[in-house]
Amino acid sequence: MGVKVFAPASVGNCIVGFDTLGLALERPGDEIIVKKSNHKGLRITQITGAKGRLPYEIEKNTAGKAALSVLKHLGAEDMGIDMEIHKKMPFGSGLGSSAASAVAGAFAVNCLLKQPIEKRKLLPFAMDGEELASGSRHADNVAPSLIGGIVFSRNEHSVHRIMAPKELIATVVYPHIQILTKDARNILSENVPLKKMVEQSSNLASFIIACYNSDFDLLGRCMEDVVIEPQRAKLIPHFTKVKEAALAQGALGCSISGAGPSIFALSANTFIAENVATAMQKVFADNKIKSELFMSPVNQEGAVRY
Amino acid sequence: MGVKVFAPASVGNCIVGFDTLGLALERPGDEIIVKKSNHKGLRITQITGAKGRLPYEIEKNTAGKAALSVLKHLGAEDMGIDMEIHKKMPFGSGLGSSAASAVAGAFAVNCLLKQPIEKRKLLPFAMDGEELASGSRHADNVAPSLIGGIVFSRNEHSVHRIMAPKELIATVVYPHIQILTKDARNILSENVPLKKMVEQSSNLASFIIACYNSDFDLLGRCMEDVVIEPQRAKLIPHFTKVKEAALAQGALGCSISGAGPSIFALSANTFIAENVATAMQKVFADNKIKSELFMSPVNQEGAVRY
Repeated sequence: MGVKVFAPASVGNCIVGFDTLGLALERPGDEIIVKKSNHKGLRITQITGAKGRLPYEIEKNTAGKAALSVLKHLGAEDMGIDMEIHKKMPFGSGLGSSAASAVAGAFAVNCLLKQPIEKRKLLPFAMDGEELASGSRHADNVAPSLIGGIVFSRNEHSVHRIMAPKELIATVVYPHIQILTKDARNILSENVPLKKMVEQSSNLASFIIACYNSDFDLLGRCMEDVVIEPQRAKLIPHFTKVKEAALAQGALGCSISGAGPSIFALSANTFIAENVATAMQKVFADNKIKSELFMSPVNQEGAVRY
Repeated sequence: MGVKVFAPASVGNCIVGFDTLGLALERPGDEIIVKKSNHKGLRITQITGAKGRLPYEIEKNTAGKAALSVLKHLGAEDMGIDMEIHKKMPFGSGLGSSAASAVAGAFAVNCLLKQPIEKRKLLPFAMDGEELASGSRHADNVAPSLIGGIVFSRNEHSVHRIMAPKELIATVVYPHIQILTKDARNILSENVPLKKMVEQSSNLASFIIACYNSDFDLLGRCMEDVVIEPQRAKLIPHFTKVKEAALAQGALGCSISGAGPSIFALSANTFIAENVATAMQKVFADNKIKSELFMSPVNQEGAVRY
């Protein structure tokens, strides 16, 4: 008898919270199936949807590493477990692909344990997987993928779900172009003008207040990244036009999802979100760039067994 | 028949929200008395507590300027009004002295009107007074002085009171030394390292989340200014020792109030706040610096008529 789990994609930075804020989507995401085996230790028996790009070695695989981290913590690394990884979302899209894998890995093996760890407390183990993939321990994708919602992560030990209006709809358009997270990070200036810092942190603070108060007017005014987006926009062809198209259709805000190239917009309802999606995809289509669309309310559950 | 109003002192920046966050104290504050007169226009008839440092000319007086701004907006600048200003708080202390005067001025004349403006909407007029005194239109002192509470001011048109735990007690120690706000501002570097920006805005976001959730643990971890305080601390003799003394007694956080020289600590209850106050004042006393103590819950009303 196997256990099948799902961990969702997520929008890191969520426009105003560089490296700290993230939002979980309902779809896409990664699926992992684990079952007990007579072999000693954890092994990966199957990987689909990864076009041969994911290793089978546990220590080098994001999901495997996160799962092993859980088992090691409990002194259970000899437990025989077979793991199937079914990637059901694109790599390098800015949608937290590695975070979803890491969360799914940690969550899946936890489901096999007699005394599983509280879901929320799996975060540091999932972070071990994320660190392997991204080289850093930012929780802005891992935390929402694990617990759902819009999550502010001060660090992996201080993770806070924000009360967000249920009506919000996320639109993510993933253009089929490639950006390396490393490039997206290297392009950033090491310094920020003090005025920009005040403006940016004011936007983050306003976003949180607006979420708690369901203040859509304020949401519409504060969802602007004045520090990171201006530096990264040039990495995504036609970014400015896509953003303008989204805002023209009434999106509350629109910016790069994580390190890109996906572009994320947040809207007050499904009707607006659909118009936003159409307008965003049209810009890419007009410029002969294929794109994929993901539209979803904020995921309220995070990783689930199903 | 005169109208007597009070506008409270406030703690600008409130440790984590440079130029945007402020907290209203119950005491000290400024008192203004206005009454209708047969003279044409607004005039200042008496100023006490200012040691001759405040001008009687309306356009040059913070309270007068704010009051006149209200009257002009309504086309009522010819209305005969006599104004007495009773400064009941120190100048240049980092406690929002000019903001309290500006708020009291605008609020007082508004009380004389047949159709007064909604209190909250007096903010831009009070800002006219604040701008005269400080040269800038930051609302971090004016907004809490006007409406009370802990207030996040994105700008003067977007002002948001944060739900804050009622138990919090502010301790402010004002050492009798002089700092010019201008110097405190000029000393600041124009750039902030990106890492520090993330840390600082994370602290602000955490503070807001902690207030909404009454999460005192998080309050205790996030109330740290990693950008402004390190640059300004040197302007206040013995600052570091005072801060350490406050934290050693259990304060949730301690930093410079506004541009200083007052030092502000926030505590979870009165008992701790009293110990914090004693420890902070002792450091100054040991170094032969006189200091004044203000201790108060968060003011919930802002400007009041009484």
